[in-house]
Amino acid sequence: MQLKFVFIGAGNLATHFSTALKNAGYPILQVYSRTNLSAAKLAHKLNSDYTTSTDTISKEADVYVIAIKDSAFHEVLPAIEFSDKLLVHCSGSMPLNELEKYSKNTGVVYPLQTFSKKRKVNFLEIPVFVEANSKKYEKKLVEIAQQVSNTVSVLSSEKRIYLHIAAVFACNFVNHFYTIASTILSTQNIPFEVLKPLISETAAKVQLMQPEDAQTGPAIRFDENIIAKHLNELKGIKDYDELYNSVSKSIFEHHQKKI
Amino acid sequence: MQLKFVFIGAGNLATHFSTALKNAGYPILQVYSRTNLSAAKLAHKLNSDYTTSTDTISKEADVYVIAIKDSAFHEVLPAIEFSDKLLVHCSGSMPLNELEKYSKNTGVVYPLQTFSKKRKVNFLEIPVFVEANSKKYEKKLVEIAQQVSNTVSVLSSEKRIYLHIAAVFACNFVNHFYTIASTILSTQNIPFEVLKPLISETAAKVQLMQPEDAQTGPAIRFDENIIAKHLNELKGIKDYDELYNSVSKSIFEHHQKKI
Repeated sequence: MQLKFVFIGAGNLATHFSTALKNAGYPILQVYSRTNLSAAKLAHKLNSDYTTSTDTISKEADVYVIAIKDSAFHEVLPAIEFSDKLLVHCSGSMPLNELEKYSKNTGVVYPLQTFSKKRKVNFLEIPVFVEANSKKYEKKLVEIAQQVSNTVSVLSSEKRIYLHIAAVFACNFVNHFYTIASTILSTQNIPFEVLKPLISETAAKVQLMQPEDAQTGPAIRFDENIIAKHLNELKGIKDYDELYNSVSKSIFEHHQKKI
Repeated sequence: MQLKFVFIGAGNLATHFSTALKNAGYPILQVYSRTNLSAAKLAHKLNSDYTTSTDTISKEADVYVIAIKDSAFHEVLPAIEFSDKLLVHCSGSMPLNELEKYSKNTGVVYPLQTFSKKRKVNFLEIPVFVEANSKKYEKKLVEIAQQVSNTVSVLSSEKRIYLHIAAVFACNFVNHFYTIASTILSTQNIPFEVLKPLISETAAKVQLMQPEDAQTGPAIRFDENIIAKHLNELKGIKDYDELYNSVSKSIFEHHQKKI
């Protein structure tokens, strides 16, 4: 018999993960969110119930998936009775043992991707990292994860936090640099559009080359003249000159041993 | 009659740009590089002559394309007699007027892309920015550029440097963050492979959304607990904790007005 799920949380990750589970045939009984609209929207999509009160969370599920901000865990979870139901979180940087005071059976399913509600993703292509506090539930979580992803690995909490940090650099910080680039262009009335082929190619290169070998630009050429010009132009635009300076230095330091 | 070209430089940009021109039917008479191997390799590819001496640069071309490091311009160019031949550079941050002491007719063709010799690119998709010191040559350069690119614009030196700075953030700095992510993963024996879907999706999202709206992660959620954990794990790994801190702060500052 298929395991039944309750989702605690209705954000970006909850939306994509619960949809993938439902599409793989797992019943999602209920969605909990503090925000009525979010809970209702996701529940409608999943054809499930929803609630905004921790008192009325269904007792009927086998697996409770916690997909809320790490900082909200200890506000929401103490109000719910899980007893020995499997309690799973999806967070990169929360150790598994933080769940142990809430249930005897705990686990982690960490899908490594950036989710926005409106954007479709192919969940099967997302690497998923699993951990559990027993071999039995580790096996069960691997089986579940393999229904929604083609790349499932077991990974400890100690290692998972490094994976999360790497993802922050490769995704969140990268996207912020796209934002900075867009802001700089807008001061000159140049459309962000013109950067799109460069952004695509930069990401495409490292699918086939090591990023170290793909590095180009003034910093790796030690072109101090260009760097000085750029710093001069950036003076006074937010913190951009400081960021430019520290990332250029970091490129120097990383590559000087190699050249 | 087709204009004939000489390329001064045989690096990544020279290789891709000269190949695109040749494929569009323009004869490339000669390649100059200080490095014999680079000159010979590119000349072989273009079926052209090559030289490593500024004394033997052909006088027969109509257009001389300078595709060398900005810092090498004033070492190489004074040794060559251009008279009134069209002299064109391809640099983002060098003003057009730096060429004026070497020829009466000067221009810029700046293709906005990251080039690695071994990697094929579709030049037609690359936005190309053109400038010249006369309307006549501006028109000519636009015509030439339109033979190799579908997106050709005229852009002043003053604006081009901002475009270059934006490209440094969106490509060079982004790629360095891929390198940092890869270095962090390697300390845990996790293959860089696992980040590839995330890197692709992060670049794909901003093809359709504004990068500001695509921002995810602990910094934009103001999740100080996760940020503190990450900074703690990064302590002592090169300059990564400093970079993490300054980029996170920059994300705070950019988005706090919007939330």
